[in-house]
Amino acid sequence: MTKTNPGNFFEDFELGQVIEHATPRTVTDGDRGVYGAIYPTRFALPSSGEFASQSGLDRPPVEELIGFHIAFGKTVPDVSLNAVANLGYAECRFHRPVLTGDTLRTSSEVIGLKQNSNGKTGVVYVRSTATNQRDEVAIEWARWVMVHKRNVDAPAPETSIPTLADALTADQLMMPHGLDFTGYDFAAAGEPHRWGDYEVGEKIDHVDGVTLSEAEHMMATRLWQNTAKVHFNTEARPDGNRLVYGGHIISMARALSFNGLANAQLIAAINAGAHTAPAFAGDTVYAWSEVLDKAETSAPGVGALRLRLVATKGRDESMTLRGENNKYAPGVLLDLDLWALAPL
Amino acid sequence: MTKTNPGNFFEDFELGQVIEHATPRTVTDGDRGVYGAIYPTRFALPSSGEFASQSGLDRPPVEELIGFHIAFGKTVPDVSLNAVANLGYAECRFHRPVLTGDTLRTSSEVIGLKQNSNGKTGVVYVRSTATNQRDEVAIEWARWVMVHKRNVDAPAPETSIPTLADALTADQLMMPHGLDFTGYDFAAAGEPHRWGDYEVGEKIDHVDGVTLSEAEHMMATRLWQNTAKVHFNTEARPDGNRLVYGGHIISMARALSFNGLANAQLIAAINAGAHTAPAFAGDTVYAWSEVLDKAETSAPGVGALRLRLVATKGRDESMTLRGENNKYAPGVLLDLDLWALAPL
Amino acid sequence: MTKTNPGNFFEDFELGQVIEHATPRTVTDGDRGVYGAIYPTRFALPSSGEFASQSGLDRPPVEELIGFHIAFGKTVPDVSLNAVANLGYAECRFHRPVLTGDTLRTSSEVIGLKQNSNGKTGVVYVRSTATNQRDEVAIEWARWVMVHKRNVDAPAPETSIPTLADALTADQLMMPHGLDFTGYDFAAAGEPHRWGDYEVGEKIDHVDGVTLSEAEHMMATRLWQNTAKVHFNTEARPDGNRLVYGGHIISMARALSFNGLANAQLIAAINAGAHTAPAFAGDTVYAWSEVLDKAETSAPGVGALRLRLVATKGRDESMTLRGENNKYAPGVLLDLDLWALAPL
Repeated sequence: MTKTNPGNFFEDFELGQVIEHATPRTVTDGDRGVYGAIYPTRFALPSSGEFASQSGLDRPPVEELIGFHIAFGKTVPDVSLNAVANLGYAECRFHRPVLTGDTLRTSSEVIGLKQNSNGKTGVVYVRSTATNQRDEVAIEWARWVMVHKRNVDAPAPETSIPTLADALTADQLMMPHGLDFTGYDFAAAGEPHRWGDYEVGEKIDHVDGVTLSEAEHMMATRLWQNTAKVHFNTEARPDGNRLVYGGHIISMARALSFNGLANAQLIAAINAGAHTAPAFAGDTVYAWSEVLDKAETSAPGVGALRLRLVATKGRDESMTLRGENNKYAPGVLLDLDLWALAPL
Repeated sequence: MTKTNPGNFFEDFELGQVIEHATPRTVTDGDRGVYGAIYPTRFALPSSGEFASQSGLDRPPVEELIGFHIAFGKTVPDVSLNAVANLGYAECRFHRPVLTGDTLRTSSEVIGLKQNSNGKTGVVYVRSTATNQRDEVAIEWARWVMVHKRNVDAPAPETSIPTLADALTADQLMMPHGLDFTGYDFAAAGEPHRWGDYEVGEKIDHVDGVTLSEAEHMMATRLWQNTAKVHFNTEARPDGNRLVYGGHIISMARALSFNGLANAQLIAAINAGAHTAPAFAGDTVYAWSEVLDKAETSAPGVGALRLRLVATKGRDESMTLRGENNKYAPGVLLDLDLWALAPL
Repeated sequence: MTKTNPGNFFEDFELGQVIEHATPRTVTDGDRGVYGAIYPTRFALPSSGEFASQSGLDRPPVEELIGFHIAFGKTVPDVSLNAVANLGYAECRFHRPVLTGDTLRTSSEVIGLKQNSNGKTGVVYVRSTATNQRDEVAIEWARWVMVHKRNVDAPAPETSIPTLADALTADQLMMPHGLDFTGYDFAAAGEPHRWGDYEVGEKIDHVDGVTLSEAEHMMATRLWQNTAKVHFNTEARPDGNRLVYGGHIISMARALSFNGLANAQLIAAINAGAHTAPAFAGDTVYAWSEVLDKAETSAPGVGALRLRLVATKGRDESMTLRGENNKYAPGVLLDLDLWALAPL
């Protein structure tokens, strides 16, 4: 009888099931250091305790994506070890900043199931919640993955597809306690552009590119205790390549977006995300953004920008998302829809 | 007259000599961060301050191997800079957990000497002790190395070979102050298997593999201030390869062993260890374990498992340690004998 | 209208202009961890909180070069994004140790301008000052860079070339508050050589070499939030290589210099520096030093050594700085002139 974890297969999930994921994880300044070494991030608020304090926060938070990747990584052994594909994210909300010293743990509820017509796979929908050591919610999100069946003859569950919003509305965003941008220091932040300077429909080419290396994407992925083999093991794929973790592309694109969106200091929500092509070491990643929506918020001096953040392999100055037949244009790696907070 | 350190040669050692090794080193959360980025470790106790606290520990320790590699690295410039080979370890005991903020220093006593019959080299046996800033012993171990003579004509010392135990007995293991697994949270730890679920003779294939990269093994080795040239310098070996530090394989195997031994939370002792083949970037490392012995301990709810932890280049599902003529099977990189602590 | 930062061109600078650089940055133990993973540094004072305390310092500082690279990196987007070449440094003084928890920000004053005769570029001289969260000066330095003109027809400014010292004098060095080497522990530091054991004119071959990897130089450079594209992007140079950040070579040479200069615990000043050839992944870096001057200081038991620190590609046991026509010898990568503090 094996003692190793084979992961769950489609027929192991049932509607309403709650999974407590393993390995609570304390966030430390070590995470901050490694994150800053792997991504060219320069957002002033997570970079500087002084800037955070001047923005009304009691203690300097780590980047939202550090919390997200840790919380997400915990779900992998139970939810997606036998996944064929990660199909999507929705309704990801950051409830409160993650601080060094916080210990995160994640649980997931199965909120939908649908066997595919081929009978070999099915789609599992989960809502995951990361809580800290005070049982306060830090982050929640929904995602759906296509998972293999262990036994093709296992009966199909009743189909149940959850209703998930295309995007969170601005009034659903949660403002970090105390956040106040009325005294915002634009010189320290690095760019003069306020919330009011961005227009819906505007696109921003973030200009800079970074060539990926094997060591860096593996280190990032491990930092999140994400165990998917394809990221680490050249023997796990027929082509002998290590697939770059999708979250590595998210963090790289977010960091690159500093150049043109330096004042989008905090991520408040991720509305949707699609990893549209695989990335490998040697690829050079660029990013561009499109302003999708704008809203005021309840926090003083703080506006919300809904942004499409697109990562590409090679620079695309035309910033084309979709080409023929409405398919993603060649080179598009990531299409992420998020809400960020910026000074009014 | 040179100011650089040529290291000690065989005739520089004498029985009873005590060497205070250089560079005391404060352990920080930076070590924790880099370690977690380089090794796919997920043991709940060092990962989570909450889990450590629920296990009765006052403060969250770092992984035992962080302390071991730091303490061991200090001995390299004095003991093994001119080593032909690291021949073995024995009687390694972890006296107390290493915490962030602790400053480790190491001293070694020469406990044995034996010139080889070729007259060109000799074996040096040392017992090393790492202490913290309160002069409390943190870790102790014995090892023996084959070292070059500087001058072949130097007289041979009287042969003296110390008696070293094949393995520590369970009652020699030291329990961390306060350790108590009676309220152990198996869901958080990631696997349901208790101490009682493991049987002597049982083998566990840890399934997962990691392909080594140059940057990662160099970073790990440097973190321990280990200065052996062959790990860093492509000009140090005729084949132009950088040899992976043996401790990198130990930590990789230990981390991989999570899958099947997630509840072996703490290493209490290392009874013996052999690096049986060199490893290089590009190799994919797997691990398997064999349960060698079991014992109860003085700590509530805590049992000890004596484990053989084997790292291999390429996966060996047959888990074969030795082949023809009782030689290590091809692909075996590491044969480590250790005691770990798990919940009853 | 673009929102991205195009950097400043030669005609954007004017004499006396003060630039407040973006992105204040809090130093953490994560920086310490990553730095120690990337460079083979073993200087006891920044390595050990105990050693720092025994040397009279209230709190353990990070290596001077961590502060320097962070502070320097802040100037890149404003000063040298459009630089043709970094021409030199001068008068770099470390005013006080940088501690974890300190937040550094940097401002620069334009102290000189000289358009080149080709009319296409010009030299900009700046004096930069890094301050901590208490507005205390941590580091100051001057540097000059050759910058492109945006518009070749823009009028040339009046030429103004600042007077910069070839080297700081020993009495200009600032001693860290409390520093006292009268009870210096040579065994812990790793070498027996006192300040008095070094003679002006003496050269020290530091023996050890490190082969550079892509991941490591990119991680180091990012840690300093240095954004120069040529370090990260294989598409930024015609040859498809990523140029190693000059500061990476400085830190590597400093770390290598431990072997022979282990007691040069602190850098007090950098008098001058030239990056004399580019370095790339795969190069093996070695270092040698020459003692240029010696002086006593106002701190008890503390002497100052003025050192030329030379990094080379491949080892040069002859330690030749310049060859024919007084040009730098082939293989020389860095020629750095600094003051370090050592026990009398």
